[in-house]
Amino acid sequence: MPGPLSFFVAGASGTWRIEEIRQVAGEALPAASNLSVMSTPPEPGCVWVLRGAASNIRYARRDELQALAKRQQGLGREDATAAALIAIRKNDAWWALAQDERRAILEERSRHIAIGLKYLPAVARQLFHARDLGEPFDFLTWFEFAPERSASFDDLLSRLRASEEWSYVEREVEVRLSRAG
Amino acid sequence: MPGPLSFFVAGASGTWRIEEIRQVAGEALPAASNLSVMSTPPEPGCVWVLRGAASNIRYARRDELQALAKRQQGLGREDATAAALIAIRKNDAWWALAQDERRAILEERSRHIAIGLKYLPAVARQLFHARDLGEPFDFLTWFEFAPERSASFDDLLSRLRASEEWSYVEREVEVRLSRAG
Repeated sequence: MPGPLSFFVAGASGTWRIEEIRQVAGEALPAASNLSVMSTPPEPGCVWVLRGAASNIRYARRDELQALAKRQQGLGREDATAAALIAIRKNDAWWALAQDERRAILEERSRHIAIGLKYLPAVARQLFHARDLGEPFDFLTWFEFAPERSASFDDLLSRLRASEEWSYVEREVEVRLSRAG
Repeated sequence: MPGPLSFFVAGASGTWRIEEIRQVAGEALPAASNLSVMSTPPEPGCVWVLRGAASNIRYARRDELQALAKRQQGLGREDATAAALIAIRKNDAWWALAQDERRAILEERSRHIAIGLKYLPAVARQLFHARDLGEPFDFLTWFEFAPERSASFDDLLSRLRASEEWSYVEREVEVRLSRAG
């Protein structure tokens, strides 16, 4: 069985304070003050909820997974009090591509996996798949890092956004957070 | 946006008559007389419901998709009055594999795509993904064929079940159907 669903719940309370919601492409998300990451559906009354499933690897080869595993650290590190939620939807042209075509764009030409590797272990992350759930976004990626690594995280984002892969992104919202209280 | 969810609904009525439910591996599914394929959630009172999402290609290369497209025909052909629903769950070992490892087992060593191609256009099919939905099965595949092709369909199933890929299947239920009335 896959991991259970995760719910990213924005509202008036929550363990993360929302510093900024940046509309990168397409429609934004409504403003809210706080966000929680939950493993059960929220009570009614929140501002928005995004759902995603931690799922299986879709592109990385074994050698790439080994390189990632050697460097990566888990979520929840004490000094990682800054976080970001990047919600992305890709266009129909992306989803109509064959597996080898998507892999070639994502890694051979855009270096998505290799770029992410360079920012490990400082920037920890977890990818959630949402497309099969009928959600408004295809992917939610959750990142955690120490606040002094924010510029480094911004650098990671700009490198990915400049890639050929990102030409298929039709909606992107970036939510920047800091651990509340 | 992906195609909407499909609901495979077993109960006392439905456009397909259930001829047999075969428990191939792991737990079976309860007996029922009829099955419908619906695009909206069913009313309460059905015997069981399986959900799946028509999703993007996970393994096939462009050349393989082209070969399939050249030969395949759609669902709903008038003479295709026999159908089958194959529900499969693969084990944790499968899902822990990297993308290149799963592709090598599925196609280079098990010839899953090539074997399916041989039975086109007689056996039309549609794959639905269910794992990210938290369903009891990872995949639902719907097949339609003329009744006189049943032996050919059985042959397709035995070739796939004899493959290395199938050693990762921990639950499989085969529902054989004929168009009702």
